[in-house]
Amino acid sequence: MLKATNPIVMTVANTITSGDVANGLNAIGASPIMPSAPEEAEAMVNIAQGVTINVGSINQEQFRQSQLTCNAANSQGKPLVLDPVAVASSPYRSQVVDTLLGDYDFSAIRGNVGEIAFLAGVAWDTHGIDAGGGEVDFEQLTTIVKTCAQKYHTIVIMTGEIDYISDGKTVKSVPYGTPAFATHVGTGDLLSSLVAAFLTVASTDEYLEAAYQAALTFALCGQKVSDKLPGQWFNGLLNELYLVSNDKINHWEKEELHHG
Amino acid sequence: MLKATNPIVMTVANTITSGDVANGLNAIGASPIMPSAPEEAEAMVNIAQGVTINVGSINQEQFRQSQLTCNAANSQGKPLVLDPVAVASSPYRSQVVDTLLGDYDFSAIRGNVGEIAFLAGVAWDTHGIDAGGGEVDFEQLTTIVKTCAQKYHTIVIMTGEIDYISDGKTVKSVPYGTPAFATHVGTGDLLSSLVAAFLTVASTDEYLEAAYQAALTFALCGQKVSDKLPGQWFNGLLNELYLVSNDKINHWEKEELHHG
Amino acid sequence: MLKATNPIVMTVANTITSGDVANGLNAIGASPIMPSAPEEAEAMVNIAQGVTINVGSINQEQFRQSQLTCNAANSQGKPLVLDPVAVASSPYRSQVVDTLLGDYDFSAIRGNVGEIAFLAGVAWDTHGIDAGGGEVDFEQLTTIVKTCAQKYHTIVIMTGEIDYISDGKTVKSVPYGTPAFATHVGTGDLLSSLVAAFLTVASTDEYLEAAYQAALTFALCGQKVSDKLPGQWFNGLLNELYLVSNDKINHWEKEELHHG
Repeated sequence: MLKATNPIVMTVANTITSGDVANGLNAIGASPIMPSAPEEAEAMVNIAQGVTINVGSINQEQFRQSQLTCNAANSQGKPLVLDPVAVASSPYRSQVVDTLLGDYDFSAIRGNVGEIAFLAGVAWDTHGIDAGGGEVDFEQLTTIVKTCAQKYHTIVIMTGEIDYISDGKTVKSVPYGTPAFATHVGTGDLLSSLVAAFLTVASTDEYLEAAYQAALTFALCGQKVSDKLPGQWFNGLLNELYLVSNDKINHWEKEELHHG
Repeated sequence: MLKATNPIVMTVANTITSGDVANGLNAIGASPIMPSAPEEAEAMVNIAQGVTINVGSINQEQFRQSQLTCNAANSQGKPLVLDPVAVASSPYRSQVVDTLLGDYDFSAIRGNVGEIAFLAGVAWDTHGIDAGGGEVDFEQLTTIVKTCAQKYHTIVIMTGEIDYISDGKTVKSVPYGTPAFATHVGTGDLLSSLVAAFLTVASTDEYLEAAYQAALTFALCGQKVSDKLPGQWFNGLLNELYLVSNDKINHWEKEELHHG
Repeated sequence: MLKATNPIVMTVANTITSGDVANGLNAIGASPIMPSAPEEAEAMVNIAQGVTINVGSINQEQFRQSQLTCNAANSQGKPLVLDPVAVASSPYRSQVVDTLLGDYDFSAIRGNVGEIAFLAGVAWDTHGIDAGGGEVDFEQLTTIVKTCAQKYHTIVIMTGEIDYISDGKTVKSVPYGTPAFATHVGTGDLLSSLVAAFLTVASTDEYLEAAYQAALTFALCGQKVSDKLPGQWFNGLLNELYLVSNDKINHWEKEELHHG
């Protein structure tokens, strides 16, 4: 996994969840950096192997930092992931995300159904910042994730009870969700940065598979400790990310397929 | 409680404690949003049911965001709570709080004795950012909380070993404090945002009772795990907030009255 | 220790780790304040007994706040500690640190080998934000820490598997490191603020000993819980900081010397 390569992953971070994201990256074997100054955006991309832009606490300074960061990541051909946190919740935020998606090439976008549906231009009833819900079927979700991936020529990881990962052609799924993920704020933010970490050890034609592996690893690690209460669950997840290996993931997946 | 309504609670957050406050809101069944940009302040209030302004890490940008947020909350008639963190510690901070209190209507103010005494204009010896201490009597504390509530035409929740809640006429008390609350930074910040959450499910003439219920729930949940060391206490509190119900609170309160 | 004096320690904080640093200070008996506004920098130094500048999330506003904070700390003769987080990672950050070190007198600098070697002007292969590594010998590390202390006329605490503390003449060492410190992000940030806390109860000619005691206390407390996984280790460290006493440190150190 990532423990051997120890990639530096830069995140323009959501200030609410930055500590947890940094510790999650650290647990799985990446080195997190989360600078704040636009003035050092390019230099920080220089030393990073992968980059994530999270708009969870975006403001004008962080937008400027994001633009300079995206520009450097694209120039240097480094994997660039977008987390469009609550993109539908304000015109300002929608505009910021629209500008970033228009001006830069993202390797992947990670969001919940509400966020991805909004980006895809598909009607979806969101509950403000959450994914929204109601009865949905596999076909509808597949259409949303594929449409978004096609529209932005990128990999989309759409997370929920089932995660859907698509490059616009194929759709892979990770059906190992647990409600435990909703008991801690910022697990989506962490997955977005983990996707960037996984992309650092893949070539561009392996990005779909790498994004899938990130979602799979995250879901299975979270599920292993899903019996824990909210106050212990995230710490349990950190331990699983710390102890995880390819062998474990393969073994867990076989168990799931057998019992599922 | 709040699990059925799942209100969105917006906090202009203290960046030091924002993650813990978000997880505390999440645990009790509210959805936290903590944006940073003045540009989206009004839109974020649109999707929120309750709002808290916390001045713990106030600066000029966050002050401007707070003003726009308060303006929108007042226009939309949504509950608005102020946490005047360390208001007495600098002229800048005192001025910010004074301006907010002068220009907007707050549904409630939550602070420690030092902060509330400062706002009330009553002499009190603070130790910088803490509440200060020394020998105090019930009458003195009652006068402070009532004076502050009368001065700002609001509900005041003054927290400490005993919490006092007043609308300027009545004073209710929650005598279930535990020193454990002081072993974790930001528990006061969390209570302020929880008060906003509780106000979202009350009509304005029920605000005193709702604020009391917030303080009561928080104190009893914290007390249930007061045997834990600092490294485990806050996570224990999160679990209690996650598991709490009206029945539990009623039951715990009866036990306290019986043994107390 | 610090529980009796309860000093207020102001930190211009790394926003990624600020909550953990605040809780670590709180655990050992100090009161943390972490303001954000340049406008209140001087007033906050007024109420503080010790100050730390951490450049982990430095930007232009925080740089201005740091300058005003350093100026006030120097004017008031209060202990001032610098944490040059990732100083070598960008020209912007190097420039900020260089300006601060040129314009103000620091009582102590706390950094890892990569950061201290960069400040000392000694060649060292850093891995971006980490300390870097490879084969090093005691003499090389001793030279780095002494050179840095001499260059900036300050106490330097250089942390790693072995911590080295120097005033430019003497070099003291704390050989009680554990890899557990690397499993949680921001432990270095916490030690920097703890150094400021320890300096508040020392006279200037005792600063070397006080910085050594801070490093010793931190290393031994972390080592006591080094069998814990990443998700539990930092909380375990908080408990040890909460429970620590001079007697315990003396006792632990004797045990180490006996078995080591």
